[in-house]
Amino acid sequence: MKKIIPSLPKGTRDYSPDEMKKREYLFEVFKYNFNLYGFNCIETPSMENSEVLNGKYGEEGDRLIYRILNSGDFLKNINNKKNISSNNLKSEISKKGLRYDLTIPFARYVSMNRDKITMPFKRYQIQPVWRADRPQKGRFREFYQCDVDYIGTKSIVCESEIISLVYSIFKKLKIDDFEIKLNNRKILLGISEELNFKNKFEKFCVLIDKIDKIGVSGLKKEMKLSKFPTSSIKKLISLIELKGNNSSKINYVKTFLSNSKIGLEGINEIENLMKIKSDFTLDFTLARGLSYYTSTIFEVVPINNNIGSLCGGGRYDDLTEIFGYKNISGIGISFGIERIIEILNTNNLFPEKIEINNNVLISYLSNDLIKNSLELANKLREKGIPTDLYSEKAKLKKQLQYANNNNIPFVIIIGEDEIKNGKYMLKNMKDGNQNLLTINEIINKMSSIK
Amino acid sequence: MKKIIPSLPKGTRDYSPDEMKKREYLFEVFKYNFNLYGFNCIETPSMENSEVLNGKYGEEGDRLIYRILNSGDFLKNINNKKNISSNNLKSEISKKGLRYDLTIPFARYVSMNRDKITMPFKRYQIQPVWRADRPQKGRFREFYQCDVDYIGTKSIVCESEIISLVYSIFKKLKIDDFEIKLNNRKILLGISEELNFKNKFEKFCVLIDKIDKIGVSGLKKEMKLSKFPTSSIKKLISLIELKGNNSSKINYVKTFLSNSKIGLEGINEIENLMKIKSDFTLDFTLARGLSYYTSTIFEVVPINNNIGSLCGGGRYDDLTEIFGYKNISGIGISFGIERIIEILNTNNLFPEKIEINNNVLISYLSNDLIKNSLELANKLREKGIPTDLYSEKAKLKKQLQYANNNNIPFVIIIGEDEIKNGKYMLKNMKDGNQNLLTINEIINKMSSIK
Repeated sequence: MKKIIPSLPKGTRDYSPDEMKKREYLFEVFKYNFNLYGFNCIETPSMENSEVLNGKYGEEGDRLIYRILNSGDFLKNINNKKNISSNNLKSEISKKGLRYDLTIPFARYVSMNRDKITMPFKRYQIQPVWRADRPQKGRFREFYQCDVDYIGTKSIVCESEIISLVYSIFKKLKIDDFEIKLNNRKILLGISEELNFKNKFEKFCVLIDKIDKIGVSGLKKEMKLSKFPTSSIKKLISLIELKGNNSSKINYVKTFLSNSKIGLEGINEIENLMKIKSDFTLDFTLARGLSYYTSTIFEVVPINNNIGSLCGGGRYDDLTEIFGYKNISGIGISFGIERIIEILNTNNLFPEKIEINNNVLISYLSNDLIKNSLELANKLREKGIPTDLYSEKAKLKKQLQYANNNNIPFVIIIGEDEIKNGKYMLKNMKDGNQNLLTINEIINKMSSIK
Repeated sequence: MKKIIPSLPKGTRDYSPDEMKKREYLFEVFKYNFNLYGFNCIETPSMENSEVLNGKYGEEGDRLIYRILNSGDFLKNINNKKNISSNNLKSEISKKGLRYDLTIPFARYVSMNRDKITMPFKRYQIQPVWRADRPQKGRFREFYQCDVDYIGTKSIVCESEIISLVYSIFKKLKIDDFEIKLNNRKILLGISEELNFKNKFEKFCVLIDKIDKIGVSGLKKEMKLSKFPTSSIKKLISLIELKGNNSSKINYVKTFLSNSKIGLEGINEIENLMKIKSDFTLDFTLARGLSYYTSTIFEVVPINNNIGSLCGGGRYDDLTEIFGYKNISGIGISFGIERIIEILNTNNLFPEKIEINNNVLISYLSNDLIKNSLELANKLREKGIPTDLYSEKAKLKKQLQYANNNNIPFVIIIGEDEIKNGKYMLKNMKDGNQNLLTINEIINKMSSIK
C-alpha cells in the first residue's frame, strides 16, 4: 500500500481527550438544564434530501451546502456531457446534502411526525452542521449547533421560560457578565412603516444589525448609499440613541409608532411579556439577520467583550409551512457552542476536576504481580472509582510520567511486599506524599475525593 | 416558495425523544465504564480527505464511501468532458469522503499526534459512520460505532482488561446470556500452514467465519468449490468439531500445530492470557473478516439468539504504518450499538425510569396565575427537579393528556385558591391520587422519588 502523509480537511478539527472533556462538560450543563425545563432531545440524520435543503438558506447558503455525490455510475443518465456546467450537473449527480443547520431539519421532523407528537412540542438538539465556508479564526466547516425550540404555541410563557433557561445555564457555567437584548420584529416593521421604507425592510434589518460594528455614522452612510429617505434616517437615529430603562423606552416607541398597527402589536407583546418577566434589555436596533422570525427576537451578548452574541433566537410563525404544515407558531434559541467555549477558556471557568482523567493508576513492578493488580483494579472499579492500570511492566519513573501526562492524581505502587502484607503504597502525585494503606483504606480515601 | 413533501434519505432515521432516551442511556453506560477503565474520549471530523479513506476498506468498501462534491465550479479543470466516465470523474470532483469507520480515522489521529500523546494511549470514540450500502432490516446508511482501543503496547494486560470491560458493561446493561469467543490469528495461520493451504489463508478466514450460517456441510462444499485440498478439509473438520474446555482444546491444538512456529506462538499467547484471565471460550473457527488483525481476536455473541455478534475486535500490529508510523501494536473492540439496542428492547431491559420525561408538569387554570406558576416551576428546578410548565391556559383535560403523552408522572394544578392558601394540588398520574401540599412538601416528595 502506498504510504501517505495524513492530514485533516481544511476547516475541520480532531478533538483530543482534553478538548473532549471540556465539550462534554458543556454539553452536560446544557442537557441538564434542557431536561430541567422539560425539553426533549431529538436527533436527525446528517444527510437531508436536496429538496429539503435547497432554497432555505438564501443564495449564499445554497452555495455553502456540502453536496453528496450519488453512488454508483452517477453520470449514467447525463446525455450532453460535452457542454455541461458545474451548476447544471450538480443537481443531477447529487441528490443529498449535509445538514446546514438544525432548524430546517427540525421543521421537516415536525411536519413528518405531526401525527405522533403532542403539541406544544419542546425539543432540543445538539449535533454538528457543515458549511463550505472560508475557514478563518473561530470559523469552521464542521461545528456543533445547540438548538432549543417550542413549537405549536403562541404563548408568551415560552419567551419567559427561554429567558429563565438562559440565566439557569449561564449561572451554572459561572458566566455572569452578559446581557439579554430583546426586540420584536413587529416593532422593526412598524418603524419601517412609520419612516416610509417598508419596501426596504429586509435591507433595513441587515444594516441595523451591523450597528455594533459600523456605529451610527457608518449606519447613516450605508443607509444613504442604499437610498433610504434622508428624513427617515434622521428620525431613526433618535430612536437608536434612546437611553433609559425598558419602561421609558416602551413609552417613547409607543408614541413613535402610534400610527402603526403592526408596531403597536409588537409593543403590546413586549408589554405582556414584561408582566411576567422583565430581566432583559430592550434594544430596538436588534434585528437578527435570518428572515423567518416574525415577533420576539433576542440575543445574549457578553459585556466588555466584542466576541459577538453567545446565543440568539426568536419567534417564527410559519417555519413548517414550506413542508405543508401551516399555522404552527414556535420560538427557538441557538447556543453558540464555540464562542461559549472561548469565553470559558479565556476566563478560566472550566471546573478544575474535569481535567482529571482517572482517580488512580495502578503500577506494578513485576510481571508476577499482574493478576493481583488486575484484581485490585476491578475492586476499585466496582466501587465506582475510575482506575487505570499501566499495561506493561516498566520503570517506575515511566509509569509516574504516564500518570502525570494523563492528569491522574494518585498512583498505587504494587511490589511483592505489598501483596504479602495486604498494604499498598498510595502516592499523591501533587504533593508527592506516600502512604501504606489497605484496600479498604484506599477505597475510602478515593471515594471521599471523587 | 414551492411546497415540498418532506422525506428522509433512504437508510437514515430521525430519533424521537423516546428513542433518544434509550440511546443516551446506552451511551452513558458505555462512557461510564470506559472512564472506569481509564479510556479517554476523542472525536474526529465527519469528513476525511480521500487519500486517507481510499484503499483502506477493500474494493467493496471503496464503492460504499460517501463522496463529497467539491465546492464551487468543480468541473473547471476537467477538459475532455465528452468522454469522461463516472469512475474517472469521481476522484477529480470529490476530494473528501464521509467517515466509513472509526479505526482508520483513529490511526490517522495517532499518526498525526504522535508527538502529543503518551503511549500506551487508551481511547474511546462514539460517532456516526456512513456507508452507501443497500438498506435492509437492521442495516442503515448512517449508524453509530462505538470503539475502544489500546495503542502502543503488546501487553496481554490489554486483552484481559478488554474482557473485564465487556463483563462490566454487559452486567450494567443486565445482559447475561452471552459468551465471549476468543481465538488467535496466528493459530489460524498455523492451521493453514499445517493443512497446506497457506496460499488460501484469506479465503479460509472468510469461509470459516461463515460456519455459523452454512454449517460444517456448507463449509465442506464451499472449500471443495474453492479447490482446497480434500485431505485438509477432513483434518480441519476434526478441529472444528472439537469439544471440551479451554485446556483440552489447547492441548489438542498444541499437538495439531506442533510443527508450526507461528501456530505455537499463537497458542503461547493464549496460554499467557489464561494465566491472568480465563473467562472466555476458545473457538478456533472464529476468524473475524477484517484483515488487519494479527493476533488475538474475539467476539461477544448472545446465547440462544442468532442476531449475530454484539461486539468484536482484536489485536493488530501495523494499523498506523500506512500513515508512516511503524511498529505500533494495538488492540481494539467495537460495540454493535444497534444490535445491543435490539437485545435490550426484545428483553425489556431498558430501565423504566428512562421513559420518564420530567418529574412534574405545572398546570395553571387562569392566565392571572402564570407568574405564580413560573415562580413555582423555578423553585422546583432550583432543587434539581425537572419541571415542565404547560405553556398556555387550556382545559385541564388537555393538560393532563399532555402529561400522559409525555410520561410525566405528577401534575401540580394551580388555581386561585391554591395560591391564596399556599397549598397546591399534586396529582399522581399513575394512580390518580391527589394531595394538597405546600411547596416544601412537594419538593421533599419529588426529591425522594427522583
